[in-house]
Amino acid sequence: MSVPPTPSAPRLVLASASPARARILEAAGIGFTVVVSEVDEDAVTEAHPLAGPAELALLLAHAKAEDVAARPEAAGALVLGCDSVFELDGAAYGKPYEPAVARERWRLQSGRTGQLHTGHSLIDASHHGTAGTGGTGGTGAGRSGTTPGPDGGNAPSATALATASVTFADVTEAEIAAYVGSGEPLQCAGAFTIDGRGAAFVSAVHGDPNAVIGLSVSTLRSLLRQLGWSVTDLWDSYK
Amino acid sequence: MSVPPTPSAPRLVLASASPARARILEAAGIGFTVVVSEVDEDAVTEAHPLAGPAELALLLAHAKAEDVAARPEAAGALVLGCDSVFELDGAAYGKPYEPAVARERWRLQSGRTGQLHTGHSLIDASHHGTAGTGGTGGTGAGRSGTTPGPDGGNAPSATALATASVTFADVTEAEIAAYVGSGEPLQCAGAFTIDGRGAAFVSAVHGDPNAVIGLSVSTLRSLLRQLGWSVTDLWDSYK
Repeated sequence: MSVPPTPSAPRLVLASASPARARILEAAGIGFTVVVSEVDEDAVTEAHPLAGPAELALLLAHAKAEDVAARPEAAGALVLGCDSVFELDGAAYGKPYEPAVARERWRLQSGRTGQLHTGHSLIDASHHGTAGTGGTGGTGAGRSGTTPGPDGGNAPSATALATASVTFADVTEAEIAAYVGSGEPLQCAGAFTIDGRGAAFVSAVHGDPNAVIGLSVSTLRSLLRQLGWSVTDLWDSYK
Repeated sequence: MSVPPTPSAPRLVLASASPARARILEAAGIGFTVVVSEVDEDAVTEAHPLAGPAELALLLAHAKAEDVAARPEAAGALVLGCDSVFELDGAAYGKPYEPAVARERWRLQSGRTGQLHTGHSLIDASHHGTAGTGGTGGTGAGRSGTTPGPDGGNAPSATALATASVTFADVTEAEIAAYVGSGEPLQCAGAFTIDGRGAAFVSAVHGDPNAVIGLSVSTLRSLLRQLGWSVTDLWDSYK
């Protein structure tokens, strides 16, 4: 029962401007290009007033992927959208932006455990299921025929949530002041990261640590499998 | 009860040739230089036949730190030694080096959970406790007087183990072949990493993910505190 030969690898488009997500893909040997979505995140959030933090991460990830998949630049590509939301005591926290907000958050989360939810949405506009190069095992691959084009709405897709719990160290006021002063937490969901200065203040993660940074590669592997691909198809030098 | 003012920050010497450990410190904003130890790891291991994987990681980390702290290049510095050992079913696994060994390990660990132990040893030859710049709260700081020099044996030190459990995805033979073919796992304790291609095949970590990569910054923060320093003292631009 050998694996059927895969057609030549499609290109991956990352629908995110996040440098941290790009670094994860680069380190994981996965080639990609970036096309930033123009999704109005506040509008999506307001349109789903009953969505919890986890559902919100999934909704926003899928909205980003759909937005980019509909563009000409993404024709024939796999499009990955991701969105991260931090949850503490049931409330959703995005990026703090302001130093005063970041300080307040750290006073709240010091010594405690929250959940980092990263939603992943993968849309396959590569049409590889109809290319006549072998079976794929994908779910619905090739449904939209052989015409490549901006048809994110019809292309097969898969979504998944990766949630990791994050336990913070007991931090001092001086540490909070220094960390906020560094500027790092202002642009991070949850006001921290584990791949920067914030690593000093996170004592444990339970889950995929790359989900905490913003993109779970093991989740991407699962989504690729659902659509008939192997993650190794996307590796830079192992196509 | 305010924190006493710290003297000017000492320099940190990393007693490890590991590029992954260096990347963690760089990302965490911590300035350092590298001085590679000449510890004979096999000799240390053979000298402690009853040591389990966790104890071995600590012994090797301390041996590396002591070796480097005794050198003139480390005079007046904080010296950090680290060593990582992977444990599965009670057995210790280091780097596989050979493709055939790496393949065998992956067939064994696919779908299972092991422990990554990283030992940390911090030796403080900075003598800041006697510099007359204020109290430090350190344990035994300054014991060896004001003469800076290669005295790793007398300088205050602290050690700690950071253990994280690692759960592997169920991987296929094709994925194992591609991963081993990439060369990445050959030089990694446990034949994997979570900050590279291996991220696709690790579904979860329980513990500090940076301990899995080779250096837990939160553990370094704790060791620094034991010796009277704050991790923020070592931050590049926030001294």
